[in-house]
Amino acid sequence: MDKKIRLGVIGVGNMGTSHVRHVADGRCPAFEVTAVADLKPERLEAAKELAGEIATFTDAIEMLDSGLIDACIVAVPHYDHAKYAIECMKRKIHVMCEKPAGVYTKQVREMNAVSEANPDVVFGMMFNQRTNCLYRKMRELVQSGKYGQIRRTNWLITSWYRPQFYYDSGDWRATWAGEGGGVLLNQSPHQLDLWQWICGMPKKVHTHMQYGHWHDIEVEDDVTTYVEYENGATGVFITSTGDSHGTNRFEIQMDGAKLIAEDEKLTVLEFDEFEQEFSKKATNAFGSVGAKELEVELDGENPQHIGVVNAWGGAILDGTPLVADGKEGIKGVTLSNAMHLSHWLGKEVEIPFDEDLFYDELMKRVAGSKKKENVREAVSDTSGSY
Amino acid sequence: MDKKIRLGVIGVGNMGTSHVRHVADGRCPAFEVTAVADLKPERLEAAKELAGEIATFTDAIEMLDSGLIDACIVAVPHYDHAKYAIECMKRKIHVMCEKPAGVYTKQVREMNAVSEANPDVVFGMMFNQRTNCLYRKMRELVQSGKYGQIRRTNWLITSWYRPQFYYDSGDWRATWAGEGGGVLLNQSPHQLDLWQWICGMPKKVHTHMQYGHWHDIEVEDDVTTYVEYENGATGVFITSTGDSHGTNRFEIQMDGAKLIAEDEKLTVLEFDEFEQEFSKKATNAFGSVGAKELEVELDGENPQHIGVVNAWGGAILDGTPLVADGKEGIKGVTLSNAMHLSHWLGKEVEIPFDEDLFYDELMKRVAGSKKKENVREAVSDTSGSY
Repeated sequence: MDKKIRLGVIGVGNMGTSHVRHVADGRCPAFEVTAVADLKPERLEAAKELAGEIATFTDAIEMLDSGLIDACIVAVPHYDHAKYAIECMKRKIHVMCEKPAGVYTKQVREMNAVSEANPDVVFGMMFNQRTNCLYRKMRELVQSGKYGQIRRTNWLITSWYRPQFYYDSGDWRATWAGEGGGVLLNQSPHQLDLWQWICGMPKKVHTHMQYGHWHDIEVEDDVTTYVEYENGATGVFITSTGDSHGTNRFEIQMDGAKLIAEDEKLTVLEFDEFEQEFSKKATNAFGSVGAKELEVELDGENPQHIGVVNAWGGAILDGTPLVADGKEGIKGVTLSNAMHLSHWLGKEVEIPFDEDLFYDELMKRVAGSKKKENVREAVSDTSGSY
Repeated sequence: MDKKIRLGVIGVGNMGTSHVRHVADGRCPAFEVTAVADLKPERLEAAKELAGEIATFTDAIEMLDSGLIDACIVAVPHYDHAKYAIECMKRKIHVMCEKPAGVYTKQVREMNAVSEANPDVVFGMMFNQRTNCLYRKMRELVQSGKYGQIRRTNWLITSWYRPQFYYDSGDWRATWAGEGGGVLLNQSPHQLDLWQWICGMPKKVHTHMQYGHWHDIEVEDDVTTYVEYENGATGVFITSTGDSHGTNRFEIQMDGAKLIAEDEKLTVLEFDEFEQEFSKKATNAFGSVGAKELEVELDGENPQHIGVVNAWGGAILDGTPLVADGKEGIKGVTLSNAMHLSHWLGKEVEIPFDEDLFYDELMKRVAGSKKKENVREAVSDTSGSY
């Protein structure tokens, strides 16, 4: 490779630092880190220790205007994801946006519109879990049509445990003003995206959630959502940061198969025929269709963030596919917004919902958001936590 | 044993026939079948083939008045469970009632009042799943207090598959008039009872359900319920008769442990300390409390219906404990009634709920219940189906 893509990173907290490290370690060979921006000078120094003599900025816009970068990773708190992504695109700087795409769909729509207007800018979303061979295989099987339609989806994703220290480690964390929500905005965006990526978007959402149920925080740390899909299928999505040893079990029941992803293992039970065909013919009141467990071949690849960044590099240099197009980020935000709105209204919400109403309701909570006391600043090792 | 308890069975369809067989085969040595009652003469003949020269009645009351029986199993359609249990108790005939205890709590309260007035009559409920060592151990662990309080309960019990033939095999099946509901009244009463037996009763119930989603029936065959408990814990209960290879996975998250019952295996992850204690002290934002998987010793006993009947015999002869006191049947009926009422009202229902309202709403549906066409009578082998 003759020339590397000059990479800037906006925000070098937990995630941004991790991205700088990956590039500095040579694991994203299309890139070289040339600049970073952060409000906190000590974080800029820490980034220099990882990446050597790079330019540093306390003002991200100055970095974007510096001419030092061709591409930029946006790793700031969620409210500013869309804002900085837009600033990048307007300057023809390729952008990789951390999840979630934004806090509310209105701002994500604006970002997507700017992306539409700048098709030469490569815009990706950091949905690193889409690189997991497990979920890629699930999607392939579900979307292939060979098993008919989905009937029931069930994701118990409570393995996002966080002790109180996590929430105390940043003044923006788990506040309406700083994050715009809790587990739905910070931890679960991965699964919200995978859920819709594999099974499609539901039509109706009914959510129960608890604020500060397990922690001293003002936003949700426990969520149970029921959904219905266009075809009448139903689903449940349960997430929490309070279960010290939670579960990650994703089951999809289809006309012709049952798929379960649990503990990094995919189990596929393939039926001899679609249930509805069997049911019509059966003459034993307690019979069931024959089935066999498949030996599922996974390709074993699970490159996570590095894979997302490398695919982005390929897209910039050679037009090869992204892991996740940036514009797809709106789907997960739609889901989390619908869940919050359902809880706020105390009723089922249909998708599409009233996005202005959501925004107004969110802003009420932002206005009442309390400033945190006793914040204990820390950049923690995020290995294995996303 | 000098003298056997003379047993009558009201209703010798699938379940009643199975009880006659167990006693005739000598697996319930305290009992001998002396009489059976059923509206259908051909079923009486079939019972005679199993049990030899027994008295048969097409009128159950005549059997109760005959002086031929000391104890009676009630295995008729659900609406008549309470009615016949009451008729037994009034005649000082010990009674074992099939689940559910009734279709609506009002009738179950009446039955329980008659039981209170007749303490010398041994009244048991056929909660055969309570004999399963798996659930007995779960209950022991949860109720012991050593793991603190429950936080989240999650039962995916979709392994109740029934093809259309099952529903076509009886004109009372899966009708408002005949059963008063679907999967909640017929298949899931076992798990509704175990759920409350192990975890206690919830305070709030919010249910989504579908009628005839997978079958040509007028009642629910797919149910998703969200509950909240007094202590703030939440739960989900999902059941269906449409998943040809469904799941039976029951997870309980507690302060100090996670318990999972799946595929007749109990897994217990015991935490080094309660999560809330760990959370207060932790200084790693992504840390979690230590935990170890226990080697759970089960006694291996799972005598099911035979165990329930034998315990009932012991209670009659020697005053030893029942598997399930008949009066406890009201708890599962309360749960299923709350679920239906929540669906009918389209909102959350608090327990206790308005039982008159429930009854009125049920009777509206009974009034609109359609007579089934194309009924294909059959008595099927129920082995492994309950």
